[in-house]
Order: sequence, then structure tokens, then C-alpha cells
Amino acid sequence: MRVSKGIGVAIGTYGAGVLNMVNPIAQAYAEKSPVLVISGAPDTTARDPDLLIHHKVKTFDTQLRVYEQMTAASAALEDPKMAAREIQRVIAAVRCDRRPGYLEIPRDMTWADLDEAEVRTPVATPRDQAALAEAMQEIATRLNWSRNPVLLAGIEIMRLGLRDQVIRLAERYNLPVATSFMGKAVFPEHHPNFIGTYMGAASHPSTRQMVEGADCLLLLGVWLTDTETGRFTSLIARGTLIQVLADEVIISRHRYQHIGLADILPALLDSSEIKMREFRNDYRPEPPSTDKRSLVASVFSELSQLDDRRYTFTTDTGDCLFGSVALHAETILNPGYYTSMGFGVPAALGAGLAAPDRRPIALVGDGGFQMTGVELGTLVRYGVDAIVIALNNGGYRSLEALGGGRAVWDIHPWDYVAVARALGAEGTRVRSPEEFRTALQASCDQNGVRLIEVVLAPDDISPTLRRLGKQVLE
Amino acid sequence: MRVSKGIGVAIGTYGAGVLNMVNPIAQAYAEKSPVLVISGAPDTTARDPDLLIHHKVKTFDTQLRVYEQMTAASAALEDPKMAAREIQRVIAAVRCDRRPGYLEIPRDMTWADLDEAEVRTPVATPRDQAALAEAMQEIATRLNWSRNPVLLAGIEIMRLGLRDQVIRLAERYNLPVATSFMGKAVFPEHHPNFIGTYMGAASHPSTRQMVEGADCLLLLGVWLTDTETGRFTSLIARGTLIQVLADEVIISRHRYQHIGLADILPALLDSSEIKMREFRNDYRPEPPSTDKRSLVASVFSELSQLDDRRYTFTTDTGDCLFGSVALHAETILNPGYYTSMGFGVPAALGAGLAAPDRRPIALVGDGGFQMTGVELGTLVRYGVDAIVIALNNGGYRSLEALGGGRAVWDIHPWDYVAVARALGAEGTRVRSPEEFRTALQASCDQNGVRLIEVVLAPDDISPTLRRLGKQVLE
Repeated sequence: MRVSKGIGVAIGTYGAGVLNMVNPIAQAYAEKSPVLVISGAPDTTARDPDLLIHHKVKTFDTQLRVYEQMTAASAALEDPKMAAREIQRVIAAVRCDRRPGYLEIPRDMTWADLDEAEVRTPVATPRDQAALAEAMQEIATRLNWSRNPVLLAGIEIMRLGLRDQVIRLAERYNLPVATSFMGKAVFPEHHPNFIGTYMGAASHPSTRQMVEGADCLLLLGVWLTDTETGRFTSLIARGTLIQVLADEVIISRHRYQHIGLADILPALLDSSEIKMREFRNDYRPEPPSTDKRSLVASVFSELSQLDDRRYTFTTDTGDCLFGSVALHAETILNPGYYTSMGFGVPAALGAGLAAPDRRPIALVGDGGFQMTGVELGTLVRYGVDAIVIALNNGGYRSLEALGGGRAVWDIHPWDYVAVARALGAEGTRVRSPEEFRTALQASCDQNGVRLIEVVLAPDDISPTLRRLGKQVLE
Repeated sequence: MRVSKGIGVAIGTYGAGVLNMVNPIAQAYAEKSPVLVISGAPDTTARDPDLLIHHKVKTFDTQLRVYEQMTAASAALEDPKMAAREIQRVIAAVRCDRRPGYLEIPRDMTWADLDEAEVRTPVATPRDQAALAEAMQEIATRLNWSRNPVLLAGIEIMRLGLRDQVIRLAERYNLPVATSFMGKAVFPEHHPNFIGTYMGAASHPSTRQMVEGADCLLLLGVWLTDTETGRFTSLIARGTLIQVLADEVIISRHRYQHIGLADILPALLDSSEIKMREFRNDYRPEPPSTDKRSLVASVFSELSQLDDRRYTFTTDTGDCLFGSVALHAETILNPGYYTSMGFGVPAALGAGLAAPDRRPIALVGDGGFQMTGVELGTLVRYGVDAIVIALNNGGYRSLEALGGGRAVWDIHPWDYVAVARALGAEGTRVRSPEEFRTALQASCDQNGVRLIEVVLAPDDISPTLRRLGKQVLE
């Protein structure tokens, strides 16, 4: 799970249920969310190939074969003697890799007795202490030789709960810290060492200059994806990189295995060999709502002024994702790597259930809302009082900005406010910064599931998307 | 495709797009709909395992591996020299097996030149004439020995466009004809030889008696599924069966390959060895709306009185599917084997586009509507003037009837009429047979996409579902 430290569990019907979960589970694999999928299956004794059981596709193991492609481990529990060991193996893999796992329980195995002798505690993979010592030696040398090192903090810091250690590390050696796009909010944005959110050519110019000008870049939990790097526009040189991931350390072009963030961070904090740095921080965040004509800018500006300890933000893909670079908040969940549309509203449901002390605020475009926005009804049903902000610009504007003609990207207009009300939520439509401020305040002051539809001009896009589009089209 | 004789084509984005299509394509595999899936893919030259391209899951071929599990043939077109042959191989398999195929086009191959020399016409698999002669001899002998043969017509008759031949066959030898559940409407229900829709213990009693009492049962295009047979309650003996499928003939416990329906039907019609039969038809369809208190019965009764040449009916799963046994119509598309919820409304879109001379009428429950009912907006956008009838019984009542407690199966209520209006369609809510008749008449008389929400008592279920539930719970 992205919010709590446990693992998620998703239970579904064989076939039509679990095969409808393929894309979300693929996203969980790509973006490293540990979730265990549990599926039913037909009786092992009723598998006559000439009789067709409903929900079956090609063969009885079709679904297992599909899930093998998107899980760390998977098993069909067809033999009670093996079941305990298989369950342990799959759950251990989910915990270790922080990726999905899959268990299939045939109907006639539901009440089968496990073989007690097989129940045992899985052994954790030992850490390689010699590799750690060697990697640490190399990291200290590289940092000390560097004239202008920069620390870039990424998504895995949040997932592994290592935020405090990163802050202490930055302060201990006075290192400038940027966050990656997906890692946005893993480092406090008001911290004097913060130099902005880095995403290649789409970055704030001073952030880009500092990150790409560094002669030693310490990447902590950062995935080098096309989205993270502004479509690989970044000019980062491999030879300057120290990339520390959950289970691996890559320095320049060589790698150390069986060590990772949880080993390196304490070692860096304990080291007596790394020297203190000095640097001048030229980063000044873009002032709130620079463009009075931009309603989308005012949305992110208003949201940034909320007490961010009380809210979990989720974003969908599109400009609500790109624009969220300008959102100052402690917790933002986004689909920044896999970028599957329709993440925003369902993520608010998950975030609200996993962290009930924070109210979810979901940011979603009209395209994403048309995919999964009806989950407003599920929010109402389970009493998760989310605020959903639908940025309605009438189409797939970020695809358009990244290189298409307009006509193709227009979508069928819905009355989003009427949809919200039909599902049992409250809804308001706003067309100006003042109306948005009033509606946001009212929504924050009251309970219930609330939709705010923000009607945007088609060309009202965020500065990040504008920079990215300009760069792609050049 | 289910309606036209061509094949469908579905084009999607690599990853988040095409992996969201897994369940519908699995259904197309299970229920034999020929559809070609075409996906994009990252450039072949940009597949550095250390750089993560957005939408990628495990490896670059994850998606191909997934689609191999639910297609007749699949290929990633990474080599222009092979591409023409691969495209031909996949399309030929889709046409031959009438099941899905998958082609993946890497971005840098979009404009690649095909190798002209490779473009050639695929060779059709030759039919086995000797096997046909032997099978025909055996079929004629079994039919002539039989005292009370019955012909059971199934879904493949419609798919292969063999309806007229089946009618001629029934008339030529005066055979009683039942249709299977999925094959409903492949034989005219007003025909004097029609003896009802067979689905095991859930059948009309006289239908069940004739089918299960037959000493020779000629199954034409029938899949022996649990749903088709009323969860395998049927007492049909293997030794009495002649099962003719698209590509196979199974008699008792032996099979002939490389021959099928398109070979056997003309041979049966041409035969001079099969004798004419006599039988008494005791089947009387259940009179329209027997139960004045049942609104669901009156819905199917009213629909049966429409001019069925002007409409294509689609049903979702649930009681709109079971209840449709009482619907007299020429064309009904249902997900009767794979039974994935959410089929009804999107199927109306496909049916309307494929057969524009018939207006689609979709039957859907409230559960199915909550999954895909917002495709009403897509119907509006593309001007497909479907009539959607939402049977709102407040929950998953067919699951309840097939063996669960009530509380679990209630679902969050939506205002379905308001949802329809918010998406640009018209909507009406009805609570009585009279109101339904008026609303149906008005919908048929006017253009536009129209939703009729039928508010049902939770225990107002169809006779078929009631029989099936009783049988399962016994």
C-alpha cells in the first residue's frame, strides 16, 4: 500500500472479476505497491476439458499465467500439502519486493486442512555487509571529491517510510535536495535546503540547472523513468550518479546487490568520513497564481494554502498530475510512472480508508473522471468524505499539448455536478478563482463527499505541461 | 463480431490502455468473437532495461505474454522482414478460430516498409472429405434408429450465419427444435417445431422433458457449459449426443476433426438416407405476464410484442439474462457463458454501429449498470439511439437467489434517471406495468438515447431464475 506500511488485499471472482483487475495490478507492479490478489477458481475435481465452466477463458490456468506477468510471486493452491508453504512464499515475496502477489483458491480447497508441519517463518534474505562497506567507501569518496553534490529524493523514500532520515541526512551534511516528480512531497518544500521538483526540461529552470550541473548526484529511491526525467530530456551523466534503491545500489555503471536504502541511509548518517558542504540556494518557488488569467494556477495555489497535515492529495494523470508540481503538500499520491487514467477518485477511496485521520482531496481531469468518477458513489457508500476536484477542460488537453490536433482530443461533455448528485454526493460548478476559493472553503468546512467542477478554458494549462509540450514539440 | 460477419478491431495504448481491455478480450475468447487487438509499444531501439518507459509493467513483452493467454494468435511486429507474414498469420487465425488475435506495433516500426515478397494469401486448412462421409453415415444411422430425436440449436448457428439452413433442416425431416440459452433466438420461436429454450432444470418443464427424454440429441453449434445446461443439472447422456461444432464433430465419445457445421449442415440437407419424423409438440410458451404482480414479467412480455425485426436486443448478466428466456425476439446478444457484468450497454453501442438498421434495446440490472452504464454518454456521442432498460431491484439479486443472504447483495442506490440526463440521454422511471408500457411506447416512437429505469421489488425475479435458484439450493 502507498499510505500504510502494510500490504493491500484485493479479492475477486475467477475470470470476469479478477481479469478486470489486470490493469490496476499492472500499475501496482510498475509503481511498486504491495498488494495480494486472492481469486477463487473452479473445483479441481470438475475440470473436464469438454465441460465449460462459466468465466473460464482458454484453460483453467489462463488466469494464473496472466498474473505471473505482473506479480512478484503467484500460486494456485491445488494441493493442501503444499498450500501453507505456497502462501508463505507468495506473501514473503510481496513484502520483500513490495509488488503484487497472486493466490488462487479452487472452490473445493476452501476448507481444506493445511499441513501444519509446513507452517514456518520465512527466512529473510541476509544483507551483504561487505558490499555495504565497499559501497559506503565509494560513496564517501565520491561525495567528498564532488564540488557541488545534489541529493534527489524519490518515491521509494515515502513507500519505505524513510522521510525523516532523508531530512536528517540533508541537514547533517547541508546538501541541496530536489525531489523527483513521483517523489514530490517526500522532502518538505519549505525546508531551506529544498531546490524544487526535478523533471528534466519541464523543471523550474533553477532546479534543472542545479540538478543537471551537479558533479555528483545522490539519487535516493528515484526511478529513472521517462516521466520522472521529462521524457529523458535530462542531461544527467551516468558517471555522476549514485542511485540507491530499495534493494540495489548503482554507482556510475556498476551495481551492488542485497543492500539498499534501509542499509545506506543509516550508514550515511553514522559516517564520520563525509564532509559538510556549503551552497547557495537560488530556488524560489513560482509565486502563487502568477497568472491572474489562469484558473488552473489559482486552483493549485488555493490548495497549497490548506493545512496540509489534514489532507491526503491524490491526482489522476493529465494536467492535474503535471500541475501538481505547483502543489505544496505533505502527501500526494499519483500514478506518475505508469500514468493510467482513472487513478484519482479510486485512490481517494483507498487513501481515506487507509489513513482516516486525513481527508482525501482528489484531483482529476474530465477524461479521467469519465473512466472511474462514478466511484463517487462508493465514497458515499463507505462514508469516505473526499473532496473531488474535477478540472474540466473539455478534453484530453495534455495529450494535445504533447503533440496532437485539437479536434481529436475533445470528449463528450457530461454534467459532472449532476452526476455527483445522482450518486449521492454534493456538487458545485465554478468558473473563476473567487468561485473556486469559496467552494473549496465550503467543502473543507462541511462533511460529506463533495465534487467541485472547475470549468477551464481549453488553453488554460499548467506551466509544467507548457514547458514539457514545448520541449517535446521542438 | 457477433452481429456482422466481419471481424472487430480494437486499438489501444500500450499498457494502461490495452491491459484495461483484458477482461472483454477474455470474454471474446471464451464466447468466440473474432476481434483483432492492435497495440502500440515503445521503440525497439529504446529498450534499455535501466530506463523505465511509462506504461511498462515487468518487461517489454509483458503485454504480449498476457495476450497470448487469450488469443488464437499474437505477434509483436519487431522485424519488418517478418511483419507481413505475421500479420497474415494472426488475421487468418482470427478468421479461422473466430477468436481474438493480437498485434503489437513498436513506435519505430509504424512507417517501416513491409517485405513485399512475403505478402501472400494464406492457405485455408483443407476439409477432410473422408471424415465427413464417415461421420454422415454414422449420423444418418443414429437418427434413423432413434425413436424420438431432438435438434438443439446453439450460439454458433448465429455466429456462422447458418440460421436458414437449420430451419430448412428442421422442416425437411420434421424434427422438434429447442434452442440453448446462449443460442436463444437462433430458431424462430413461433415456428411449429419450436419446443422452447433448454437450460437444464431451469427450463420450461415440457422442454426439459423432450430434450432429456430424447434418445438421439443433435446439438448444432451448442457449447456444453454450466450456464447452458442449468449448472450441469441436465440429465443428457453422452451416448445419445451428436455434437456438431464449427470445427469438430463429436458423436458419443469419439470425435472427427477438420469438419464442422458448414460441412455437416449441407450434407444433412442433401442426404437421401435420413427418414422423415413425426412428433407431437406439447410445448406452449408461458403466456405473457402470467403473474399480474410481477413487473419483471410484464417487461419481457411487452418487449416480446415489439416488431422484433426492427430491434437488436442485448442483455447484461443477472436476471435480465435469465429473464430473457421469456423474450420473443429475433436477435438477442448476451454474455451467457462468460457472464461478465457490464456487457449490456456497451454491447448496444457495438450492435448499433454494426447493424444500424436495427435499434438496440439493452437490458441491464442496476449492478451491471453501475459498472458500464456511463457508456450511455458514448451512445449519445456517436448518435446510436439505443433504448436502455435498467431493471433496478436494488442489488445483486441473482447471486442472492443462487444462494446468499440478502444484506451482502444490496448495492448503493444511484439516481439512474439523473445519471442518464447528466450524460445527455433522456430518462424515465417506472413502477408499474402500465407505466412501463407507456414509457416503452414513447421511447420507441422517438429518437435519441433513452433510459427506462424499472423499479422492481427485490423478490420480483423471473421464473427461470426462480427455478434455477430452487434447483441449486436443493
